[in-house]
Order: sequence, then structure tokens, then C-alpha cells
Amino acid sequence: MPTLDEYRAIGQKLRQRVFGAPAPGAAKSPTQELAPDLGRISDEVLFGQIWSRPGLELPHRSMITIAALTALGREPELKAHIRGGLNVGLTREQIVEIVLQMAFYAGQPAAHAGFRAAKEVFDQLDKQAGG
Amino acid sequence: MPTLDEYRAIGQKLRQRVFGAPAPGAAKSPTQELAPDLGRISDEVLFGQIWSRPGLELPHRSMITIAALTALGREPELKAHIRGGLNVGLTREQIVEIVLQMAFYAGQPAAHAGFRAAKEVFDQLDKQAGG
Amino acid sequence: MPTLDEYRAIGQKLRQRVFGAPAPGAAKSPTQELAPDLGRISDEVLFGQIWSRPGLELPHRSMITIAALTALGREPELKAHIRGGLNVGLTREQIVEIVLQMAFYAGQPAAHAGFRAAKEVFDQLDKQAGG
Amino acid sequence: MPTLDEYRAIGQKLRQRVFGAPAPGAAKSPTQELAPDLGRISDEVLFGQIWSRPGLELPHRSMITIAALTALGREPELKAHIRGGLNVGLTREQIVEIVLQMAFYAGQPAAHAGFRAAKEVFDQLDKQAGG
Amino acid sequence: MPTLDEYRAIGQKLRQRVFGAPAPGAAKSPTQELAPDLGRISDEVLFGQIWSRPGLELPHRSMITIAALTALGREPELKAHIRGGLNVGLTREQIVEIVLQMAFYAGQPAAHAGFRAAKEVFDQLDKQAGG
Amino acid sequence: MPTLDEYRAIGQKLRQRVFGAPAPGAAKSPTQELAPDLGRISDEVLFGQIWSRPGLELPHRSMITIAALTALGREPELKAHIRGGLNVGLTREQIVEIVLQMAFYAGQPAAHAGFRAAKEVFDQLDKQAGG
Repeated sequence: MPTLDEYRAIGQKLRQRVFGAPAPGAAKSPTQELAPDLGRISDEVLFGQIWSRPGLELPHRSMITIAALTALGREPELKAHIRGGLNVGLTREQIVEIVLQMAFYAGQPAAHAGFRAAKEVFDQLDKQAGG
Repeated sequence: MPTLDEYRAIGQKLRQRVFGAPAPGAAKSPTQELAPDLGRISDEVLFGQIWSRPGLELPHRSMITIAALTALGREPELKAHIRGGLNVGLTREQIVEIVLQMAFYAGQPAAHAGFRAAKEVFDQLDKQAGG
Repeated sequence: MPTLDEYRAIGQKLRQRVFGAPAPGAAKSPTQELAPDLGRISDEVLFGQIWSRPGLELPHRSMITIAALTALGREPELKAHIRGGLNVGLTREQIVEIVLQMAFYAGQPAAHAGFRAAKEVFDQLDKQAGG
Repeated sequence: MPTLDEYRAIGQKLRQRVFGAPAPGAAKSPTQELAPDLGRISDEVLFGQIWSRPGLELPHRSMITIAALTALGREPELKAHIRGGLNVGLTREQIVEIVLQMAFYAGQPAAHAGFRAAKEVFDQLDKQAGG
Repeated sequence: MPTLDEYRAIGQKLRQRVFGAPAPGAAKSPTQELAPDLGRISDEVLFGQIWSRPGLELPHRSMITIAALTALGREPELKAHIRGGLNVGLTREQIVEIVLQMAFYAGQPAAHAGFRAAKEVFDQLDKQAGG
Repeated sequence: MPTLDEYRAIGQKLRQRVFGAPAPGAAKSPTQELAPDLGRISDEVLFGQIWSRPGLELPHRSMITIAALTALGREPELKAHIRGGLNVGLTREQIVEIVLQMAFYAGQPAAHAGFRAAKEVFDQLDKQAGG
């Protein structure tokens, strides 16, 4: 069984593959500032021991996370995971389909919030690409 | 654009591919009894116009539905969609991975409820296979 | 302004109009047993000062409560308020329409759970009437 | 049975009665831009086949939608439906009563969020009327 | 048993101990403006008859409220109760621990939202102290 | 920093202090059977690295967990944590107060469900004591 250090190394690498490397000098998130241990645990466990499991492919892990965050109405994290989904190979069309299907399982307002999040992310990426 | 009848035919076929054909003489569900129009709309729209869209593969539609139902704590529908996921090609291992990942995005109690649902479905299938 | 005793009297009367008088010798609910003050507050405030307000008619108060309990997935209370809605003049058809509409605002699983609750109440009433 | 085109025509008319005609040149919503089919389905089904059903009057459909959106904490859609409720004949007083009652079924924070939404809508309407 | 006036007096005093006295000339909240009775009921019941009960100490009442609001994702009320918790003797460290633990029972996104709320409150207090 | 083995040992001990030692020959839970890694992670992280932190006392960790599970409507886990709370020193009265307060922050139906859970646990304990 791997050590904690090994899990953390696996997790950090995988987290960066999903979310990209943090910009140098980027401000810490409130979680990183107030509870750095949750960031560490997130690397060691959520990315190091869950997202890294072979039983489900990386793009599928993004899909189900986007679905759940849309259903639960957790928009800031949803935006991060829409970006992440694109980073691990989901297409914009697939992301739109996931949010659309949630209209029927979590209600149309959940889907509307999901599309607001998706549009914000897509627009930012277009602007960066256009800049 | 297809007519309603065509959508309904597409939807019924797809619904049966996911959930299987209803057993002959099976009792109606409360929804079918009290609001048959919702069953019809479900065929015409949810299965006929959403699940049938080419932008996301059928097993991926099962994945995201299982994820959302686990996150939302909707156990009876979750059990139906776990069976459905197996029918469209998900493995038990993939379903376990989906539920497991929800522990981190919707909380451990959501995952425990998901595993109770999954175990019930798996046990029933094993019994049917063993019978 | 009414006194607490007056509010409680108004509330008890209104609660009984909605839910019926408790059967003589009926067991206490867990809330009544563990937190009798919540039952008292419910009479003095929820029924005595909210349901009794003139700004919304009694059947409309039942409608919105049934809608919210369906959306939130609180089935035992939903069943009580479906009975209550019938007591204050809602028809079964209206109750079915309320639950049906929730399919689109809270997701189809919320409506399925609502129809399970409604059918259970309707069947019980039919049996009592038939007996 | 009506055709899809007929349902859509019924639905569009009813949606406009609830929400008003879109301002000429108004920007598309993220949902309309990313998933125009959901807007179409919303007209054909939610408004064309649900809100149009005779079993529940239009103002009552607004009431239950406002109740559910308050309970679920879906503020942008709640604001749209508060405006819509006023358009189909609800009074401000009735809307306030609906939100108030939710304090007891979904918790006081749900009601506070509902009142923030209502006040924003009411203030905008007052400003428009005053302008 | 106390009268309503006495409950209200107890409740107002206790509410002010938790949230501080309202600044003179402070704007009314939307709830106070649209439904002043809910404010009154909140004093008479929530603070006058619940928070004042001897069965649970004041800081413990803050703890459980912060936990629930984090789990439910009700950020504006969470911020008020984080300030309130500090007023009744919780330390910042305790508040961070409460939010952190919610990551495991309500999901990491709930905790991230909780830390955003906590940081905003802590930063405002630091600025006031520094000013 | 401790190793994973050390965290797991700390966590197992603490989990047993909260929930008691598993009865010899007790059946595995669905989570333990389908996803034993979540049980392991729960020991290593949730109990080994969160519940064991010095920043919040053990009974306070029980309090906030009971509050959150009541608010979220996760009854099976709530029952386990009500038992756990009693094991780490909460009184029945304190547990009743926690559930009662949730009536105002998550709605009365959440409290009713919480009292059903509490009564079931209290009755079982009384029966065991009486046996």
C-alpha cells in the first residue's frame, strides 16, 4: 500500500491534470487559507485515492461530478469542474448534454443554473483564446 | 422534425432498453395510475428527446443519472437506474465507483444510501441468476 | 394583540380543521413525546398565527405546503398534508396536478415520490369509505 | 391529441402570459443559447401540456411554483416566477404569505432568501412604475 | 407560563446578544420590511422560546446552527451566524472545525462555501479592528 | 506527520469510542461490502484526521453532526450518530434540543424526522437496558 506521501504526489499530479497548475502568485482560496488540511486531504484522498482509481475513466469521473454539482446547485465548484472536464477531454457538447439531462432529474431550475455556469466558463475560455 | 408519435415510439423503445419490458400483468406504478400523462411525457420527452440525443452515449447518460440520484438521495429511482445502468453496459464496478465518488461531493451519508441501494439491486440480480 | 392562550385556541381549532381531531387514545407522535413544546408552538404559531392569516385562503395554504413537501422529499409530512388538503376542500385532481407540476421544478423523482404518497393516502381513504 | 406544433403554440402563448413577451432585442439566456431544445421543450411540455391543464387554475400554478422555488432556494427562477405570479393575478400580499409560510416548512433561511427575491422584484416594478 | 410580551422581551435581548444591537438608522432587511411578523415571531419563539431554553448552552446552539447552515448552503444566514457564534464565545478555530467537518457529511462543496462565508466575516472583523 | 497506519489506528479507536465495537459476527454494511476502501478512508481520514483534531471537543463534533444529518434528512446515519452522541457524553435532553432547533433552520418536517429517529434509538436503548 502506498504511503501518504505517495498518495499526495499522485493526487497533486492528478488534480493539476484536472484543474491545471495554479497560476504563480495566485491568491489562496478561503479553504486553503482557513483549512489547509482540507486541501492536503483533498490531494491525498479525493484525488490520490478516488479520482486515481482505475475502475472509472477520468472523463467519466468529470461527468458524474458535473452532474452531481448541477443537481446540488453548487455553482462555484461546478464552474471549476466544467473547466476540469474540458481539461480531461470532455467536449462542450457533452457538458451541455449532462446539464440538460439534469433538468429532468433535479428540475429545470437546476439546469438553468448549470447553463449559467457553463456559459460563464465557455465565455471566459473564448476570451482567453481570442485575446 | 419528428412528430409526437415518432418521439414516443423512439422513447418507448429506449426506455425498454434501459429498464426492460414491463412484466406482463405488472401493477401500474402510482405515477402511471394517478398521472399517466407524466409516463407519456417521460416517453415522448425524457427518453424520446433527451436520452436519445447523440451528444452523450447511453452508458454515460446512466452514469450521470446514477450520480445525481445518489447525490439527491432519491433511492427508489436510484435502484431503477442502477438496474438500468447494468442493462446498458455499465459494470457493477463502475456503479460502485460512481457512488463512492459521491461521498466526497454530496457527503458520506449520500454514498452510504447509494451503496444500500446498489447492494439491494445486486443481491436481487444474484438471486434471480441463482434461481 | 391576542394572548398566547388565544393564539393557541385559534391554532388548535385550525389544526383540527386541517388534520381532523386526534383519535381518542391515539399514540403520541415522537415529536409530541420528545418535544411537546414544538407541538404547542406549532399550534400557537404555525396554525395560530400563520395558517390563520387572512392573506391567503386555507386551500391555497394546503396547496403550497403540498408543493413544498413534494419538492423537499418529506414524505410522512406530505401524506399528512395531502389528507389535510382534502379536508380543507382540495380535490384529488388538484393534488395530482400539484405533484405533477413539481416534476418540472424539482425533478421527476420528486414527483414519483409525491405520487407514491398520494396513492397511499387515496387508497386508505377508499378503504375506509368502502369499509 | 394535439400535434407538437399545436402544443408549442399553446405553450408559447401561455408562457408569454406568465412572463410577458421578451423585449425586442433581448439577450438570450444561457439556457436558450446553449440548449435551445430545453426552451422548446419548456414551451411544448411545461407550458403547453402542464401549465395549460384545466385541473389547476393559473394563479394556483404560480403559487405552488413560488412555494417550491422558495423551499429549494432557486432564487433567479424564483424572481421570474414572482413577476409571473403578479402577471397572472396574484397580489403582493399573497406572494408574501407564500414565502412566509415556507419559513415553517423549509426553514427560516429559505424564507429570508425568498423575501430578498420578492423585495428585489417589487422594487424593480415600483421603479418602472415610478419612471 | 410567560406571556407573549415576556417571551418577546427575552427573545429580543437574546437576539441582540447573538447578533449585536442593530446599528441606529440601519436599513430594514427584506424580511423585516415585507413580513415584520416573521421578525416578531423570531423574537418571541426562535429566540424567546428556543435559543433561551436551558437544555443546550448558547455557544452550542451557535455551533449546531453554523453546521446546519453550512450543510444546507444558506450563505447569507451562515455569515450572520458565524458573527453570532463569535459574539457568544466561539473561537475562529472552532468555527473552522465545524465547517471542515461538514465536508464529510454534506460534501466538500458545502465546506468550500462555508469557508468563503467564514473568510468574508473574519476579514470584515479584522478590517473593523484594524480601522 | 503520522503515517497512514498511525492515522488508521487513531481513527479506528476513535470510531469505536463513538459507535462502539462492532458486535462479533456482525454483518457487513453495504458500504463495507461494496466499497471497503470508503470504510478504510473513513477511519484514516474522517475519524483519524478530523474527529481527532483538538480544535473541537468530541461531544461538540457529535452535536454538529446530529444537527447536519437532521437538516439533510439522512435518517439511518442520524440514528447511528444519536447513539454515538450518547456514547461520547451527550444527554438525551441535549439531543432533543439539537433536533428541536433544526425545526427553525431546516423546517418542521426535518425536526419531525429527527424526532422519529431519536425515539427509535431511545426506545431500543431502553429495551436493551430493560432486558
